[in-house]
Amino acid sequence: MAKKGLQTSDKDIINLAKIVGEKAILYKQPDLVAYDCDGFTIHKHLPKCVVFPNSTEEVAEIVKYCDANQLPFLARGAGTGLSGGAIPLNGEVIISLVKMKRLISVDLENRRAVVEPGFVNLKLTNSIANKGYYYAPDPSSQYACTIGGNVAENAGGAHCLKYGVTTNHILGLEVVMPNGEIVEISTNGVADTPGYDLLGLLTGSEGTLGIVTKITVRILKNPEAKQTVLAYFDKVADGSQAVSDIISSGIVPAALEMMDKTAIEGVEAAAFPVGHPKDIEALLLIEVDGISAGIEEQINQILEVCKKRNVREVKVAGSEEERGRWWANRKTGFGAMGAISPDYLVQDGVIPRSKLPEVLARINQISEESGLRISNIFHAGDGNLHPLVLFDARIPGETEKALEAGSACLQVCADVGGTITGEHGVGIEKREEMRFVFTDREILAQTDIREVFNPKNLLNAGKLFPSPGRCAEVKKELKEALKTS
Amino acid sequence: MAKKGLQTSDKDIINLAKIVGEKAILYKQPDLVAYDCDGFTIHKHLPKCVVFPNSTEEVAEIVKYCDANQLPFLARGAGTGLSGGAIPLNGEVIISLVKMKRLISVDLENRRAVVEPGFVNLKLTNSIANKGYYYAPDPSSQYACTIGGNVAENAGGAHCLKYGVTTNHILGLEVVMPNGEIVEISTNGVADTPGYDLLGLLTGSEGTLGIVTKITVRILKNPEAKQTVLAYFDKVADGSQAVSDIISSGIVPAALEMMDKTAIEGVEAAAFPVGHPKDIEALLLIEVDGISAGIEEQINQILEVCKKRNVREVKVAGSEEERGRWWANRKTGFGAMGAISPDYLVQDGVIPRSKLPEVLARINQISEESGLRISNIFHAGDGNLHPLVLFDARIPGETEKALEAGSACLQVCADVGGTITGEHGVGIEKREEMRFVFTDREILAQTDIREVFNPKNLLNAGKLFPSPGRCAEVKKELKEALKTS
Repeated sequence: MAKKGLQTSDKDIINLAKIVGEKAILYKQPDLVAYDCDGFTIHKHLPKCVVFPNSTEEVAEIVKYCDANQLPFLARGAGTGLSGGAIPLNGEVIISLVKMKRLISVDLENRRAVVEPGFVNLKLTNSIANKGYYYAPDPSSQYACTIGGNVAENAGGAHCLKYGVTTNHILGLEVVMPNGEIVEISTNGVADTPGYDLLGLLTGSEGTLGIVTKITVRILKNPEAKQTVLAYFDKVADGSQAVSDIISSGIVPAALEMMDKTAIEGVEAAAFPVGHPKDIEALLLIEVDGISAGIEEQINQILEVCKKRNVREVKVAGSEEERGRWWANRKTGFGAMGAISPDYLVQDGVIPRSKLPEVLARINQISEESGLRISNIFHAGDGNLHPLVLFDARIPGETEKALEAGSACLQVCADVGGTITGEHGVGIEKREEMRFVFTDREILAQTDIREVFNPKNLLNAGKLFPSPGRCAEVKKELKEALKTS
Repeated sequence: MAKKGLQTSDKDIINLAKIVGEKAILYKQPDLVAYDCDGFTIHKHLPKCVVFPNSTEEVAEIVKYCDANQLPFLARGAGTGLSGGAIPLNGEVIISLVKMKRLISVDLENRRAVVEPGFVNLKLTNSIANKGYYYAPDPSSQYACTIGGNVAENAGGAHCLKYGVTTNHILGLEVVMPNGEIVEISTNGVADTPGYDLLGLLTGSEGTLGIVTKITVRILKNPEAKQTVLAYFDKVADGSQAVSDIISSGIVPAALEMMDKTAIEGVEAAAFPVGHPKDIEALLLIEVDGISAGIEEQINQILEVCKKRNVREVKVAGSEEERGRWWANRKTGFGAMGAISPDYLVQDGVIPRSKLPEVLARINQISEESGLRISNIFHAGDGNLHPLVLFDARIPGETEKALEAGSACLQVCADVGGTITGEHGVGIEKREEMRFVFTDREILAQTDIREVFNPKNLLNAGKLFPSPGRCAEVKKELKEALKTS
């Protein structure tokens, strides 16, 4: 943080410091470097400054100042986002929410908790675990990522197969609008809410419609029991088919994860090796939970399916400790790629489950054509793929090649009736790929919605949507049509 | 339907008949009377005409014609809606979707089906039951209501406690926009989708943003087993407490319904009497489903809770036939009020579960003050109340008194931190009550969104939002603020 006494004559920094205090603003170049990107590290841009408000009112004051002075601004949580949503493309004032990290209340009877946006995801579960409750969405970064960031990205996680992604667990929001107004958007049950679904609209809007300052989330009772299975397949096609068979059998596993050969090589070289065989093409990590009495039956069905699909070896976790090791191994999966490649690019597409064997084969082809290894480590149960393109940024042209290969993988997902993001968002990374799944008219409808909330487009501009392209033309045509008819 | 040869000189009717055929348009006053209201019968308005398109293209042609000729229009399914969403307030052209009732495809492997909007809800489950699948949202009107209407209203139902309301089961939509464009909005998995959540925005927008012409829904595998419990309580407070206790115990029942004394009197006088005792204050109908092995344990826990809360009698359904009779008795609940009152008004509010005893007491007070009986038959598990205000429209002033009492019940829901609709929508019935839960600014944000999709406001105008009131002023202030800053 800054030393006492501001060493700048920039009037905006002086004025913003008046709102948050001199110790809660960063503005010197060496301090700003840490904020030039998030988990998507390919584009880097320096912010104008970073402010650390301590309350909703301070956020509102900052936003009002930016709005009145035409300063671009954006909100940032832990900066673990994977698509560049928190990168200051336009020299933004970054509003870091890490100081707003209070757990405001827990209401066990109505199964909800209220948190500030900077509250770390895993801390919520840790805070209520002793009472037998937990918060379901579990992105792999949950030890670090904030619930505010989860709302912005509509974050998923391994256990979202059974329990749904962030949007399914948000019951209410307090939001600072792009003009500094504070509004409450809330619902109070699992059912419908009156009016348009603003809660759904805000969730996953990637910080382009408002800044969330308070979040009411649903909490769940811990399942009575859980059990975890690890299955090794010689052939990836058998593993894929087992995924389909398990779901078809009527079981909804709490999680159903897959890793391919390259991914296994990575995780075994990283912090939590399990001793997976390195000559298999695929492994599945399958977890079921629920009432104790039902668990064994489900596990037996899963073992049956795996055997029918030529599993080489299948085992049930013998202890909570063993289960924990298997998950730690899986959850470090992306980072583990660092052990086998200087750089990697995580992609994130969704496909209908039945297309899994076809899509994996096509991704393999993309890998061969580009000359880059692509590893797959993903949420197989809900068809949410994560191709990891391995590359070396020091080799000229290889970054571009990796980006192209990643984009080609998304094109495959779109081609088979899937889509271009499952949980990581669009950010700046996949703006142009939005065209794989949306027409100009559909993109225009969305930027028009943005205009309703964010008319000056000072808040997180340049994210989520492709460059206007033909959209501007379409908009003109539509306006003409409105006038003449 | 009309006889051959149109007997009118109205050019719009002649032109619309060219699109759908002369046999697929109604325009004579006696034919139109059937379309002057929906399940909300207190306001009646005649449409200009009713057209019955047979395809998306015909819908688009009709909409284009209306758009070009400034004709108000709206879409209608089975007309079972309870808040007046399909009432032609402005002499609309009604676009009835009952002829578009095809089941287009079923994809068991990826657990989805594609239907046209006029496809009846229960028919979907009936069509796939022999393969072991079903469609979860089950409004009480499911034998008649259409899935298109369910999307418009974001319909719920008894089993939405465990499985979620309509919005949780919609995977894709084809929509005719208010200018006649056909757009596809789809997602292909359980995870996040790129861009804003348009699917969520359209679902539950009560026919004000577009006309849905094709729907991709999630289908579920039948639970391996289900079991149903009926519990009679002398005291409503004990019944309410049992609801809280069951949920707190960690069980998520498939359904958890409650009826009070007046409701029991009604259902016992109607088509499917079960023989409930008439001197109890409350009954609970509780269903659990899942893996066979887990069912008994859950049932035992529920029986324990009921006993602890002084249940008079509790029984487990002895056969599928008995279970069916209990549900038929419950599902005719609203209509059954006809057996004990000339007229009734269904209300629909949501409260935090823990407020159930307090809110039921306050509704009782409203009943006493208004001199009207209020019966309660509702989804207790998710706090979705349905106070039924009994009245006699032939007595001058009693309709107004009933509307006031209904509104007072919603005010109670809003006061305890709940909201004004759980599953029936706002329509024309609860427009003014939107102010109980939204500020002018929040309503304005929503009408601005409507303007993005429906800029001329020809589609289903006058629904969902209160009269502009101070909104117009707020809008002017905001515009000024935008200009001056």
